[in-house]
Amino acid sequence: MKVTVFRLGHRISRDKRISTHVCLVSRAFGAKDLVYSGAKDSGMEESVSKVVEQWGGKFSVNYEKNWRSFVKGWKGIVVHLTVYGIPVQEKIKKIEKSGKDVLVVVGGEKVPPEMYDLADYNVSVTGQPHSEIAALSIFLDRLMGGGELMKRFPGWKRKVIPREKGKKIVEK
Amino acid sequence: MKVTVFRLGHRISRDKRISTHVCLVSRAFGAKDLVYSGAKDSGMEESVSKVVEQWGGKFSVNYEKNWRSFVKGWKGIVVHLTVYGIPVQEKIKKIEKSGKDVLVVVGGEKVPPEMYDLADYNVSVTGQPHSEIAALSIFLDRLMGGGELMKRFPGWKRKVIPREKGKKIVEK
Repeated sequence: MKVTVFRLGHRISRDKRISTHVCLVSRAFGAKDLVYSGAKDSGMEESVSKVVEQWGGKFSVNYEKNWRSFVKGWKGIVVHLTVYGIPVQEKIKKIEKSGKDVLVVVGGEKVPPEMYDLADYNVSVTGQPHSEIAALSIFLDRLMGGGELMKRFPGWKRKVIPREKGKKIVEK
Repeated sequence: MKVTVFRLGHRISRDKRISTHVCLVSRAFGAKDLVYSGAKDSGMEESVSKVVEQWGGKFSVNYEKNWRSFVKGWKGIVVHLTVYGIPVQEKIKKIEKSGKDVLVVVGGEKVPPEMYDLADYNVSVTGQPHSEIAALSIFLDRLMGGGELMKRFPGWKRKVIPREKGKKIVEK
């Protein structure tokens, strides 16, 4: 099972940091890549590429102009994270067991109503307003069964050595 | 055990949305309140207050000018979330078992080195660069043992009714 995250409707100025966090969480928590629609943002793509180059792994970020045809063309399961959906704990086993590739759709402020119909599962992480970054983290954590916390990133040039106090980074 | 989240060094323009997400995740995932240092931001406080008023519960946001004295004066355990720390899965049981109130410190880009010494535990959520919102979500999720996903918010005026497709909100 491979996981791709799809960031819907990115806006350059307003969403820059939020979308960058969405990209970095996707990478750190084991997604293969991220695709985004909305405004093309080379700055965001570059900042994520730099992280991949330094910290390893094979994560990539790609732009897709037509979100609808991209979602419709997905070969696998489409999970849309939304506060209005069914709680993640009620759906996660079904999604896991399918063994199919998963497209995790992370919306912004204005999600087209059609998205709810295109999704195989509309899934919520609590029914409270909070953060698409948090929803994505918890969803990926459940999907990976916590294994993302131990994930390795081959080809790294920088790596943290965990410490009780202070900071330690090794560089190749 | 009560949990307070401490957002260190908030900057109004740059951090506005990120810090708001930190507040909302703290509330949704079961923290009692959030305290922040850096720049006082009435706009952020108000937007979180509105969420509490509409969606229920008793969460509050308070400003603290002197982060050092606030952290030093904490009666309980201080957990600092940082990519340089010891993996959360190695420390969470100790923190849980203490039964003491927990202050979860969420840093920004420039964390004073002293913070690492003031913390009882410096804890990481993966050793990869990603997002303080994601780190906070996973930490609170582990601390609450997943129970935050079922949390209720008494006094709500708005509430989502989970659906397979579309949106349903009830209002009182």
